[in-house]
Amino acid sequence: MRSHYCGQLNETLVDQTVTLCGWVHRRRDHGGVIFLDMRDRDGIAQVVVDPDTAEAFANADRARSEYVLRIQGRVRLRPEGTQNPNMPTGLVEVLAKDVEVLNTAVTPPFQLDEHGKVGEEVRLKHRYIDLRRPEMIDKLRLRSRISHSVRAFLEGEGFLDIETPILTRATPEGARDYLVPSRTHPGSFFALPQSPQLFKQLLMVAGFDRYYQIAKCFRDEDLRADRQPEFTQIDIEASFVEEDDIMRVTERMIRQLFQEVLAVELPEFPRMTWHDAMQRYGSDKPDLRIPLELADVDDLMQRVDFKVFSGPANAEDGRVAALRVPGGARLTRKEIDEYTKFVGIYGAKGLAWIKVNERAKGLEGLQSPIVKFMENVVEALLDRVGAEDGDIIFFGADKARIVNEAIGALRVKLGEDLDLYTHDWAPLWVVDFPMFEEESDGSLSPLHHPFTSPSCSPQALEADPAAALSRAYDMVLNGTELGGGSIRIHDRAMQNTVFEILGIGEDEAREKFGFLLDALQYGAPPHGGLAFGLDRLVMLMAGARTIREVIAFPKTQSAACLMTDAPGVVSGEQLRELNIRLRQKAKPETADE
Amino acid sequence: MRSHYCGQLNETLVDQTVTLCGWVHRRRDHGGVIFLDMRDRDGIAQVVVDPDTAEAFANADRARSEYVLRIQGRVRLRPEGTQNPNMPTGLVEVLAKDVEVLNTAVTPPFQLDEHGKVGEEVRLKHRYIDLRRPEMIDKLRLRSRISHSVRAFLEGEGFLDIETPILTRATPEGARDYLVPSRTHPGSFFALPQSPQLFKQLLMVAGFDRYYQIAKCFRDEDLRADRQPEFTQIDIEASFVEEDDIMRVTERMIRQLFQEVLAVELPEFPRMTWHDAMQRYGSDKPDLRIPLELADVDDLMQRVDFKVFSGPANAEDGRVAALRVPGGARLTRKEIDEYTKFVGIYGAKGLAWIKVNERAKGLEGLQSPIVKFMENVVEALLDRVGAEDGDIIFFGADKARIVNEAIGALRVKLGEDLDLYTHDWAPLWVVDFPMFEEESDGSLSPLHHPFTSPSCSPQALEADPAAALSRAYDMVLNGTELGGGSIRIHDRAMQNTVFEILGIGEDEAREKFGFLLDALQYGAPPHGGLAFGLDRLVMLMAGARTIREVIAFPKTQSAACLMTDAPGVVSGEQLRELNIRLRQKAKPETADE
Repeated sequence: MRSHYCGQLNETLVDQTVTLCGWVHRRRDHGGVIFLDMRDRDGIAQVVVDPDTAEAFANADRARSEYVLRIQGRVRLRPEGTQNPNMPTGLVEVLAKDVEVLNTAVTPPFQLDEHGKVGEEVRLKHRYIDLRRPEMIDKLRLRSRISHSVRAFLEGEGFLDIETPILTRATPEGARDYLVPSRTHPGSFFALPQSPQLFKQLLMVAGFDRYYQIAKCFRDEDLRADRQPEFTQIDIEASFVEEDDIMRVTERMIRQLFQEVLAVELPEFPRMTWHDAMQRYGSDKPDLRIPLELADVDDLMQRVDFKVFSGPANAEDGRVAALRVPGGARLTRKEIDEYTKFVGIYGAKGLAWIKVNERAKGLEGLQSPIVKFMENVVEALLDRVGAEDGDIIFFGADKARIVNEAIGALRVKLGEDLDLYTHDWAPLWVVDFPMFEEESDGSLSPLHHPFTSPSCSPQALEADPAAALSRAYDMVLNGTELGGGSIRIHDRAMQNTVFEILGIGEDEAREKFGFLLDALQYGAPPHGGLAFGLDRLVMLMAGARTIREVIAFPKTQSAACLMTDAPGVVSGEQLRELNIRLRQKAKPETADE
Repeated sequence: MRSHYCGQLNETLVDQTVTLCGWVHRRRDHGGVIFLDMRDRDGIAQVVVDPDTAEAFANADRARSEYVLRIQGRVRLRPEGTQNPNMPTGLVEVLAKDVEVLNTAVTPPFQLDEHGKVGEEVRLKHRYIDLRRPEMIDKLRLRSRISHSVRAFLEGEGFLDIETPILTRATPEGARDYLVPSRTHPGSFFALPQSPQLFKQLLMVAGFDRYYQIAKCFRDEDLRADRQPEFTQIDIEASFVEEDDIMRVTERMIRQLFQEVLAVELPEFPRMTWHDAMQRYGSDKPDLRIPLELADVDDLMQRVDFKVFSGPANAEDGRVAALRVPGGARLTRKEIDEYTKFVGIYGAKGLAWIKVNERAKGLEGLQSPIVKFMENVVEALLDRVGAEDGDIIFFGADKARIVNEAIGALRVKLGEDLDLYTHDWAPLWVVDFPMFEEESDGSLSPLHHPFTSPSCSPQALEADPAAALSRAYDMVLNGTELGGGSIRIHDRAMQNTVFEILGIGEDEAREKFGFLLDALQYGAPPHGGLAFGLDRLVMLMAGARTIREVIAFPKTQSAACLMTDAPGVVSGEQLRELNIRLRQKAKPETADE
């Protein structure tokens, strides 16, 4: 029905007749002539309708915002002075010969260029209108290109695209499952997969050697952060590989993706141990665009006369860390109070600081509520962090976990607030994760999942599980975990040892993962893989603020779709067929958050 | 860990050292030497382990069927007389220097080359072993190539890959939905989509112009036929298009797919009206590989003295059809009795026939239990069907629907039994479907779905809905519907008219599809699309007998996964969180069908 997309018009088409189809983006009447900005997914073109073409003019005159039109006309250069160099099509316009109204439109709930004036709720309810905004179309187009680039790369590397089930059994990630009652097996339920983890391992046991899938995953969790109940994973697994094989191929994939889609050359990814990342950045996903680092000052603070510092400095699970911020001495008291509140979110009980006004003046040149408690170590401290005039030094002193979280988050916030970024893109690998983390009751839980291989023997693992490292690796970009993976356990005895350490009894293991344990007995190859969060990857590459912007039909924080009004009420008949009944009736519709 | 896949070995590698990883497919001991057939996803290679290499020999000696080994050795030509020209690697073998046991294997529940000796139940339970069979790996590899070819084609045509939700609201296909109880909205349920139909239409309203997705779809139906509760669709939609645009681009896609993946050149697809297909083949998805056609003989049979024929011939909804089968006169009485039973499945009360032994002899040359009732029309009948010596002519006489189903199915069965195929691949388009079909209570229901556009005006539609044709089209290959689609209704008034005819009141329409009806008001472009069943397409291209062979982890006919034992029992705590309880407890596990 069209000859060109609106966005394709340019000077090379002058004097040609074109046919455009699209939406009325703006309409202006000027000097007896109608100007229509016609929009389609490729861009916007200006159309001029003259009263000489009577029928076309009458139709254009009917047209309102968001009417759907088909326009035939001749491309011409815009008159001198009316050109718009900011628009790709800004040098030309179409003089309409024919205007056809393909569909009318009632007044939309918001104007596209005024979307900021309405709440997200209105835009989600009318998502099909919000998606008309060129930046939304661009973001989903970018998403499509990213999926395509990733697929093309993986196909080229011999990975096979294999679909795994959505109606399945509970998977081992440990979040809450979405359940689907079975009609044919009354009282039984399918679970929607939290990831294809077990299936991809079984595909390796079956000998597929290299598998990938862009797979939907599901977690029924409270969506405090920027999460969605269903999300998409680029899922990868290979056999007869070691860490380095998976890391190299996926790093190449991401670098090629950035080249192809953003024309960005990423550097080779540095590798950092988990321990280093926690010490230097207080985070297992450090944002390396920010040149700030935590310095350990436990040794200096052990004997100061300030319990807030000396306590954690002497405690086994304590940490005192300093964060030097160049130029930070100009922060006001009010700003520092805000940061104190900010670290409070992470459990920090306060935020000590020293401003370095003039280091040459010694104590005189410092400004700080705490320096009086540590006069004899202050020079060593300033040396340790490399303090210079104009700096501020922040301190965290608490359990190591709290210090890392609070000062790690403060580091990122300061980087953003003070615009300290030294790079646009800072990728890295984090490696050598601990196998387990200790729960508050002293029990161990897997840092990744219970199929992650340790980097030591079963004997060494049993001897000191808390010290064991795993063969896991995370790819981090700009402070976001893009993906994580590991070499898996392919040995039944090792798997049993890990289950024992986790306190998973034989019966429980069999009940939950029996089929995988069986499979490990029948000739499982060494294997490993990685899974990327596609939504987050697209969000980063699109420069979007939330993953909702890169998902066509997202859900709200209460896991509802405002457009389709899902979830919805179902009939008693349907429930009877599924052998279930409600404990309490659905509440009448209330406004979503 | 490897240098080559097993299947890659050939004469060009002679004298090179290679490293293989894979499974012991077969092991033979011969003349003090161990022969291992090593298998990986690419093929099988013969490895010779000599007692001279003591450590390698000891390891090879431990190896049993399905052990996982890593082997390093030198490629050499097999000795004269031991070459196997039927194997791609049959001219060479590897003389092992090093054999490493990467994993052991207990005795598998069945030998790969004896899989036919165990039931499908055993193979589904140990799917990861059944998938090791080279033909299974090949089928899933073909599936991956098919997905890739389709994606590459559609990307090249400017279609954007856009993901639509899995947790959503009931969709309009009318089959039973899988439901997912919502925890955050107690008493409400998500439905898993039966197709992305509504979402793709909304994407057109949003202006995405060209959309595709390889999408999971779900139907909770009793799986009598070769169906799965979750299946995969190649879903396509475009704006500003007419039937021909969609048909041309998807036909090119399928033709290119066959070229790329099977090196098959499909002919251009003929187009046949639904009416013709029913008249000539008794089916809306005729298998054109079979050169048999139904002939209408109503006019000849109206006055015969044989109620079985004259009744339907004179009834408005009746039909008498003849099917001439060349060479069929050699069918035995017993075979004819079998075919009579066969058409009984479709409701036919009998199967009349005439054998044409020697046409020149007139009635004498015919053999038939019914010819005596129609002596005066028999010559006209033989002329009508073009009877020749050696033919058999079968008859169906009943309501048209029963005749079409019974004789249509008989036609396909005879084609198969007598191997009458004239082509390997016979694609076609079926077009000009009726808008509606009449239910037994006289009401109308949509032949496709209620968003299908009629090919007439709303006025003409209202005047005689039963006669209206739709703008739908089905792609058929070898008697299987590969895909179906239509131009959709983009006009709110037309949509209302269709709902009225279907007896869907305003409230019901709003309750079910309110968001789509809203969207149609806000500037919906003309649009249409098509959806292919990927599982069935792969099945046809792979020459598989069931779709279970081209799905990695399929479900049984009772919608269960024998490997993971899904669906399973869940805890009371989980049910409480979801605000549901069971009507009756799950039965103890019973054997699946």
